[in-house]
Amino acid sequence: MPTTDAAKSGIPPLDQHFPNSRKIAHGDLQVPAREIALTNGERVTVYDTTGPQGCPVEHGLPKRRQPWIDARTARGDTNFSQLHYARRGLVTEEMRFVALRENVDPEFVRSEVARGRAIIPANRNHPELEPMIIGRNFLVKINSNIGNSALGSSIQEEVEKLQWSIRWGADTVMDLSTGKNLRETREWILRNSPVPIGTVPIYEALERVHGRVEDLNLKLYLEVIEEQAAQGVDYFTVHAGVLLRYVPLTAERVTGIVSRGGSILAKWCLHHHEENFLYTGFEEICKVMQKYDVSFSLGDGLRPGSIADANDAAQFGELETLGELTEIAWRHDVQTMIEGPGHVPLHLIRENMDRQLRVCKEAPFYTLGPLVTDIAPGYDHITSGIGAALIGSMGTAMLCYVTPKEHLGLPNRDDVKQGVITYKIAAHAADLAKGHPGAADRDLALSRARFEFRWQDQFALGLDPVTAREYHDATLPQDGAKVAHFCSMCGPRFCSMKITEEVREYAKSGMQQKNAEFAARGGVVQ
Amino acid sequence: MPTTDAAKSGIPPLDQHFPNSRKIAHGDLQVPAREIALTNGERVTVYDTTGPQGCPVEHGLPKRRQPWIDARTARGDTNFSQLHYARRGLVTEEMRFVALRENVDPEFVRSEVARGRAIIPANRNHPELEPMIIGRNFLVKINSNIGNSALGSSIQEEVEKLQWSIRWGADTVMDLSTGKNLRETREWILRNSPVPIGTVPIYEALERVHGRVEDLNLKLYLEVIEEQAAQGVDYFTVHAGVLLRYVPLTAERVTGIVSRGGSILAKWCLHHHEENFLYTGFEEICKVMQKYDVSFSLGDGLRPGSIADANDAAQFGELETLGELTEIAWRHDVQTMIEGPGHVPLHLIRENMDRQLRVCKEAPFYTLGPLVTDIAPGYDHITSGIGAALIGSMGTAMLCYVTPKEHLGLPNRDDVKQGVITYKIAAHAADLAKGHPGAADRDLALSRARFEFRWQDQFALGLDPVTAREYHDATLPQDGAKVAHFCSMCGPRFCSMKITEEVREYAKSGMQQKNAEFAARGGVVQ
Repeated sequence: MPTTDAAKSGIPPLDQHFPNSRKIAHGDLQVPAREIALTNGERVTVYDTTGPQGCPVEHGLPKRRQPWIDARTARGDTNFSQLHYARRGLVTEEMRFVALRENVDPEFVRSEVARGRAIIPANRNHPELEPMIIGRNFLVKINSNIGNSALGSSIQEEVEKLQWSIRWGADTVMDLSTGKNLRETREWILRNSPVPIGTVPIYEALERVHGRVEDLNLKLYLEVIEEQAAQGVDYFTVHAGVLLRYVPLTAERVTGIVSRGGSILAKWCLHHHEENFLYTGFEEICKVMQKYDVSFSLGDGLRPGSIADANDAAQFGELETLGELTEIAWRHDVQTMIEGPGHVPLHLIRENMDRQLRVCKEAPFYTLGPLVTDIAPGYDHITSGIGAALIGSMGTAMLCYVTPKEHLGLPNRDDVKQGVITYKIAAHAADLAKGHPGAADRDLALSRARFEFRWQDQFALGLDPVTAREYHDATLPQDGAKVAHFCSMCGPRFCSMKITEEVREYAKSGMQQKNAEFAARGGVVQ
Repeated sequence: MPTTDAAKSGIPPLDQHFPNSRKIAHGDLQVPAREIALTNGERVTVYDTTGPQGCPVEHGLPKRRQPWIDARTARGDTNFSQLHYARRGLVTEEMRFVALRENVDPEFVRSEVARGRAIIPANRNHPELEPMIIGRNFLVKINSNIGNSALGSSIQEEVEKLQWSIRWGADTVMDLSTGKNLRETREWILRNSPVPIGTVPIYEALERVHGRVEDLNLKLYLEVIEEQAAQGVDYFTVHAGVLLRYVPLTAERVTGIVSRGGSILAKWCLHHHEENFLYTGFEEICKVMQKYDVSFSLGDGLRPGSIADANDAAQFGELETLGELTEIAWRHDVQTMIEGPGHVPLHLIRENMDRQLRVCKEAPFYTLGPLVTDIAPGYDHITSGIGAALIGSMGTAMLCYVTPKEHLGLPNRDDVKQGVITYKIAAHAADLAKGHPGAADRDLALSRARFEFRWQDQFALGLDPVTAREYHDATLPQDGAKVAHFCSMCGPRFCSMKITEEVREYAKSGMQQKNAEFAARGGVVQ
């Protein structure tokens, strides 16, 4: 692994985080995976989001999709949407790629995309992409947010946040920048991103009217999305469901409107006493997005911002509209997913999932958490990871991460890592609960390693090998302890795993003795 | 608050962790609570486990229960079990105490204890105790584990771990020491503990036979529990359900027997080819426990140690036996709760709860997590916090915490804090889901503070005010930012909460305008 280039980006090389691992590539499409070599000779392959390593940031990543896209243009295609191809029965390279990645049949991928139950966010101007799929019959995905604001952080930092996010397992990344240099930041991010990039174009639109919400209009918005789409953004959050009539429903809420996009559109609607221009101009928006195959992430601008506001009339009203818009998007061959809450107590989560599936005709659900309590600022990766695992197990296709800094400040690198790993846990717990084929393999391999005191294998198979090893070293730093048949929690005498081994021996010899007694009695059942 | 004494114990004084808070005491029983003073003049009262502050460790805490206990002895009582009193229709001081603490009727407490659906672990020789209740119709409780092992940590450190655990909200603490000075360590812990202390007496019994499992016997065990009960231990984990016939059911497991107590008993059974002496001697054990009103925590020695082993024949076989033993314990007036797993994927959690309630006749369930995946060593507070929140919402009465060091090493102070706070989140999420009266009050107060940019109140109402403030300061350290009507995530221009305020104004004026128009038209509905 070219350490020098990786070091240039400020992110340590891959093997510093994942010992005993190497990147591998499957098939003619060179689908990436990570192979973990265990000390007993076994190998375990895991899904990999880290992308090509060692490419200088200023050059960007290799454009692996370019030949696929060029061939489509060469044969005269005019509609490049994955949904369009899927409906026509065509299995694209992107579909084959994700099929290999998920270990399922390409035809199954095609059919799920065709019926709108899964999306492959893949702008035709984002050739650096390693395609992935979002849908409830596939592995649950996670999204990480990056982006500078008026108050902080440089372009270089944002690219490193992207690389850092995918290092730990983010499947997509949203660039939520609201400060200066939006276009340039986005360009760097896209050219260095092997994962789909999402944005919220209303932020840039608002920047162009110098923050004057009332000056926003459809024409400007269409210009912004045309430019962002041309750059290669893979999905747009569009708050087209914030209808004029829903806004007053939020007035008595405890926390009103907490979505940035939602509050911008609500303010616009009230100022003009007109319907949301993203709603009235929705078909024009679809046309731009269809041209580049940008996917919709229909924004939940009225999501609840507190437990008290969960599942209220404003939230569910907007959801109905998102269902209506989903069908319009589909008519335009635009792939679509639906954003969901937010803050929801455990007992109200099920209703969110059930309604979304029904109202939005099984379009993939993409939720922010949900946070299951409001009382733990500083720990909202955990309050939301709980809700995310549960709603994921019910069928949510992608989980938007929350960091420990949520509600408090801008996440630093460690916060991003905490958020991503917490959400990898939530997504994997959901995969296990859904019985996704092969999902339990890694648990099994890790538990076997644990039981057999293969400490290095236990570390290597974990989501964060270095931290696991550090924690072990904190109590037993000696090298010998890595092969010791006990651990620091119980010490040598009490180790239950050690005793279990003895129990197995006893059990085995006990069986042999019984067999011997049985034979001695003449082998007759009495 | 006497800072000097608190400092002596090595734990900072309370107000360093909980600004704008003070301890208060309700009613004639002086039931503790913590009152948080908000900047808008409101006050929010929260459950408090921190106990009396500033008592020198070598003196122990005040013996608040002594007069209650003395009065019972003086009037000639011979059976001091809370279950016995409850069945006779008597509301004890302990029941009144927990009723005030939980804001419910004392008669309801009595009836729940009488039917075995809740327990008040309160050894009559633990007068320092501030009584608490464990049952699914009360607030979900959490347990923290402390204890030295052969490899580490001093007595003073263990007392500080106790104080540290209850500082962050542990409702009970188990002393799992297995090293030297067991008796002395326990004495210090008990005399300084306002919360129930649990132990696993088989550890000390094994210490006395120098680790030779085969030398364990009922007589020795009864001596150990008699001594521990006389010291004031409030509940004992007793692995009486590890029957000889269940042991071979674990031989083909991925992770065999992972409970220390379970593996000790399994080894004993196989060595002697006899039934577990804790099972055959159960009634004698009950008699000792009844004398001091020690509660049972019937141990799940065969709990699954990996996702692959969840809900298997060994686990559920043992649970059946625990149900049988519950009825025997109840006949002896011994309060009883049931320990549960362990490692269980999300979709198999419900069966654990349903079975336990049925088989154990609604005796309180006390689970370790469960961990919902095995792949995140270093993050098992989170893998288990997810399962804990879910099973808590289904009716589990107490959740045994897991720290980030689980499977890897001995937790330090920060690990203990992480574990306790994660479990406070899980327990509170469950309380919200169960609709526990008043549970949502703190969420509501915090969300209001958040929405109104009362930053100091948002911090003060959280589970960990200092961390929340630190995270805020990391981006916006200026004092002015604590009253600023925006935060660092969006900056001044984009703040959605700020925009919502404007939306409310617009909405209000819009209504006024419509009212004016309506009046101008003559006030007639058209």
